[in-house]
Amino acid sequence: MADPTPRSLANAIRALSMDAVEAANSGHPGMPMGMADAATALFTRHLKFDPAAPNWPDRDRFVLSAGHGSMLIYSLLHLTGYARPTLDDIRNFRQLGSPCAGHPENFELEGVECTTGPLGQGLAMAVGMAMAERHLNATFGDDLVDHHTYVIAGDGCLMEGISHEAIGLAGHLRLGRLIVLWDDNRISIDGPVSLSSSEDTAKRFDAAGWHVMHCDGLSHDDVDAALTAAKADPRPSLIACRTVIGYGAPKKAGTSGSHGSPLGAEEISGARAALGWDSAPFVVPEDIRDAWTKHGARGKTAHAAWTERLAASADREQFERRAANQPPQAVYDALDAHIAALIATPAKVATRKSSEMALEAAVPAAPGMFGGSADLTGSNNTKTKAMQPFTADDYAGRYVYYGIREFGMAAAMNGIALHGGMLPFGGTFLVFSDYMRNAIRMSALQRTRVIYVLTHDSIGLGEDGPTHQPVEHLLSLRAIPNLAVYRPCDAVETAEAWALAIADEHRPSVLALSRQNLPQLRLTAAGNLTGKGGYRLRDAAAARRVVLVATGSEVHIAAAAADLLEAEGVGCDLVSMPCWENFDAQPKAYRDDVLPADALIVSVEAGVTMGWDRYTRGGLNLGIDTYGASAPIDALYDHFGLTPAKIAARVRERLQGAS
Amino acid sequence: MADPTPRSLANAIRALSMDAVEAANSGHPGMPMGMADAATALFTRHLKFDPAAPNWPDRDRFVLSAGHGSMLIYSLLHLTGYARPTLDDIRNFRQLGSPCAGHPENFELEGVECTTGPLGQGLAMAVGMAMAERHLNATFGDDLVDHHTYVIAGDGCLMEGISHEAIGLAGHLRLGRLIVLWDDNRISIDGPVSLSSSEDTAKRFDAAGWHVMHCDGLSHDDVDAALTAAKADPRPSLIACRTVIGYGAPKKAGTSGSHGSPLGAEEISGARAALGWDSAPFVVPEDIRDAWTKHGARGKTAHAAWTERLAASADREQFERRAANQPPQAVYDALDAHIAALIATPAKVATRKSSEMALEAAVPAAPGMFGGSADLTGSNNTKTKAMQPFTADDYAGRYVYYGIREFGMAAAMNGIALHGGMLPFGGTFLVFSDYMRNAIRMSALQRTRVIYVLTHDSIGLGEDGPTHQPVEHLLSLRAIPNLAVYRPCDAVETAEAWALAIADEHRPSVLALSRQNLPQLRLTAAGNLTGKGGYRLRDAAAARRVVLVATGSEVHIAAAAADLLEAEGVGCDLVSMPCWENFDAQPKAYRDDVLPADALIVSVEAGVTMGWDRYTRGGLNLGIDTYGASAPIDALYDHFGLTPAKIAARVRERLQGAS
Repeated sequence: MADPTPRSLANAIRALSMDAVEAANSGHPGMPMGMADAATALFTRHLKFDPAAPNWPDRDRFVLSAGHGSMLIYSLLHLTGYARPTLDDIRNFRQLGSPCAGHPENFELEGVECTTGPLGQGLAMAVGMAMAERHLNATFGDDLVDHHTYVIAGDGCLMEGISHEAIGLAGHLRLGRLIVLWDDNRISIDGPVSLSSSEDTAKRFDAAGWHVMHCDGLSHDDVDAALTAAKADPRPSLIACRTVIGYGAPKKAGTSGSHGSPLGAEEISGARAALGWDSAPFVVPEDIRDAWTKHGARGKTAHAAWTERLAASADREQFERRAANQPPQAVYDALDAHIAALIATPAKVATRKSSEMALEAAVPAAPGMFGGSADLTGSNNTKTKAMQPFTADDYAGRYVYYGIREFGMAAAMNGIALHGGMLPFGGTFLVFSDYMRNAIRMSALQRTRVIYVLTHDSIGLGEDGPTHQPVEHLLSLRAIPNLAVYRPCDAVETAEAWALAIADEHRPSVLALSRQNLPQLRLTAAGNLTGKGGYRLRDAAAARRVVLVATGSEVHIAAAAADLLEAEGVGCDLVSMPCWENFDAQPKAYRDDVLPADALIVSVEAGVTMGWDRYTRGGLNLGIDTYGASAPIDALYDHFGLTPAKIAARVRERLQGAS
Repeated sequence: MADPTPRSLANAIRALSMDAVEAANSGHPGMPMGMADAATALFTRHLKFDPAAPNWPDRDRFVLSAGHGSMLIYSLLHLTGYARPTLDDIRNFRQLGSPCAGHPENFELEGVECTTGPLGQGLAMAVGMAMAERHLNATFGDDLVDHHTYVIAGDGCLMEGISHEAIGLAGHLRLGRLIVLWDDNRISIDGPVSLSSSEDTAKRFDAAGWHVMHCDGLSHDDVDAALTAAKADPRPSLIACRTVIGYGAPKKAGTSGSHGSPLGAEEISGARAALGWDSAPFVVPEDIRDAWTKHGARGKTAHAAWTERLAASADREQFERRAANQPPQAVYDALDAHIAALIATPAKVATRKSSEMALEAAVPAAPGMFGGSADLTGSNNTKTKAMQPFTADDYAGRYVYYGIREFGMAAAMNGIALHGGMLPFGGTFLVFSDYMRNAIRMSALQRTRVIYVLTHDSIGLGEDGPTHQPVEHLLSLRAIPNLAVYRPCDAVETAEAWALAIADEHRPSVLALSRQNLPQLRLTAAGNLTGKGGYRLRDAAAARRVVLVATGSEVHIAAAAADLLEAEGVGCDLVSMPCWENFDAQPKAYRDDVLPADALIVSVEAGVTMGWDRYTRGGLNLGIDTYGASAPIDALYDHFGLTPAKIAARVRERLQGAS
């Protein structure tokens, strides 16, 4: 019997995609059907992977940026022989408990390198993966690290602003191992792409320094040749694949009607006829399954050779530790030593500076740490003295000038973390977390260890005014599930937050840091109290009637307010609460002890008071529920009532009202 | 005496900028000093404006997208004769109470068309202004509407993803009256732009269908000629102005050192010498002031002629009403009639469909309403049957296919609203509000009437899974000051929310709408209860022990839970709370009546419970504090415990625990 044709291999993807979407009565058949041939060419002739070892560090990375076409990757993983998804998993596409979710999720399936669906971010994460590859290659050499990153992206991805940031960065860094297959089907959800875009995509990529090719996305040989040429070019490559969305469906092919809903029995039957596919739903003929399995086994030899090279490598131990994503104990020791030095000699510096000091301790001890900033290096204090720039001419550098591309930076950091072997951190102003918000969410959803250094964290930045003053941002970040938001009050808490963030393998962290100097309040050794999220920094001297709970730059102000109240005989505990998420994770008895029911709980934070009621429970929430203003810092704190005297007055008023 | 040279006019800007930043000891002198000549050429030779009538509807719009260079526009407004800023205002640059804030704020100064600082958004708002101009031109003709939109943008603006969305949209719509002066100074905050970008900006704009020119940004004649050529070209124009940041400063010019901090006495004195400017700080020589004043008066004649044309126009009344941004009474009447029809014949539809029904009523009655979607027209239900597309070939259309450009859409809507005469609304999925979050914030900060139609507002969207299921988004939007977030429970509340949003001249609104069908719960005429934000939808039958407070798609579920509890003799009020902001604005007595202290208050919302404590005050918060999952809707509501039986069980448990 003749070998199955490449087209028939691709048709297996088409059939599974149609059938799964139909069974779920939900999903996107058009994209997998249009790109089935191109993906088959990639997976059977180019992609380096071993389904028996999905986490082989030197595998090529494949990113389905157009994540709605999830049945494409589920089909490919299944057919090439990954343990999951099974055929049953695919039958249960989009059902509770199936790893075949509506959009591909990295935490559900090995072989899914990242979670996609939010458009443009897959491509931008792929840029991060390609950066990580080059950096690790520069560190460990071709023997251990030498792979490509492939992306399938659609028009939706390429219209999103983030994709423009990503391709600008990739072109600048000359990431030649990044190869993007563009599903050029000229259809978007609303209809033809021409409804909303007249862009010359090839010229646009060319302007960013990319190598651009065109091919027939339905021809295996054409796609194959383009991939070969792409690999040979030193620039990142875009391969424009002319395709037909929903290819095979007699009426809906080439229309947005095949994009996002089941084709229906009639179209599916017509497509089966047109494609010459006569198997029943979810049945893959044995010869085609065998051929796919054989292609899936193609990488075994390369993997074995790589394993031998690793065994023989002098770098083996270091490489394996990096690949396991376990920072060395030395980094925690270095931070402990730094904290001990602070206790001995307190520092009155901005927490952004405290963060830099912590980084000066941590970065040399943790080779995976890989920093950067979206053009605010000197403001975010993210670059240590010894860090060299990561550039097209020197991939060994550990500091990235991301440019004014916050969203692109955050997504790239996700890709860097997901690649493995790296611990990315990057900075911008807290207010501009808005620009990259969905990528922060994607860090949390994907459980990546990405550390966001967000400085200028309140009205305390002063004169730049309300456009630059976050007021709602702390709360809105705390609302993101699986994200640790730290707002340290001094140099010690900042170092503690860094230690916790570095250790948090499956949770991203935000460090919200001040522009202004803050006194050191932690003056005795006491273990990592930031790990508890909130703790009593000072006990009431007089009989306790009040607990002042503050974060970050307001803790020392609350301390001064407590002094005023204590002077009047009103006992005040002072609680620092750098991290709600960590506090919420403490036992109830601990939380009740810190925030006792018999005291007036008062929150003090230079941001919206929303959300604080959970802790103050009918107490007093002092904050800023409007926009800030442009003025020097002292004028602003006074204007917004966050001075010791004004805080004490509000507490006094409330105590009197309550008595 | 000879007329002052153009350069000396520009030097007045340079001097004021240096002096104001120095006095404030804070600010950005580099950009105003670099672009002073180009801005002078624009304001003295091209810009159509009348400082005595800053709100003249047919004025050219000028947008300082590089908003950190705010002293540029303050100098220009002052010198050309606007009532504000006065010289004292400028002396108080960046001080509390001065309209000369760190970044230009539209609500502080006439002549500041929009608030800028968050990079890229000024340019994207300018695209919206240029769209509004073309639409109003198509509506009212050249006699009444015929102006340009000018932008000054820096490298920071052009690297941001949003600018790519904006230029793609502008090129597609062939907005020939949009002219961008790019401050091509090759410097960003971190150093030379080449640190982070290798982009061929001219080619990139060309790829988007723009007309691109280069000029010497320090030569008035060169800039003048480029502006003349730009006006003659039918495409939007980019003028690359080669400039020197901090031009004049002997040591800091041409370096990032002049970007964001005071130059210092020595540099200022050197700059004064280099520029031949010997006046004392804040002093503008009389001849130069006179020349500027004369240029400021240039537009008076054109304005007078326009006023005559308006007086003679048959469209006068309609134009003036539009320009005053007052929707006609007819739109409220139409919505009232629609609500009356719903009361008569209830509808069980998704609230996204309810929204479409409300739009079918409102849009014909409000000619300013101007809709769109970021490629989700059929999902957001933002297009009414009669709306025609707004295209390069037909600017009379009222529906914009924004493409997959959420951030660009939101900023464009801000520009459309700020232009005046228009009431923009646009849609995407609620989860992708993340992509445009800072533009939503800028709607709120700028007090623009922009209406966001955000559908698929919970796990109720089902199979698309956690990437597409908002859980934290309602709270994070409620946290934005001056933003009304509506989550209506049925077709009546949806229509009420539209009426409120349309009437809210200085506050943007979000409508969070369901994908799934919802029963109509409001069955009797009762006035606009959504205006109260929260209200008792149903009284307890048995003695009240519980108040169930729900929003949107969870109200009918809470109603069923209340039925179960009532059947056991537990009296339950049912409160619908479609808008926290409006509820918070009610008198305390009203709020205490709706959420009485003697009942167990239970919130029910398919999102994070954070923030609800303010209303439930120690009661029970039922919601989803993790990510969602991919599954059919019923499976998800059951999985997350939001079925009537599971809600009733939680309430019962709590009542028993408390007794």
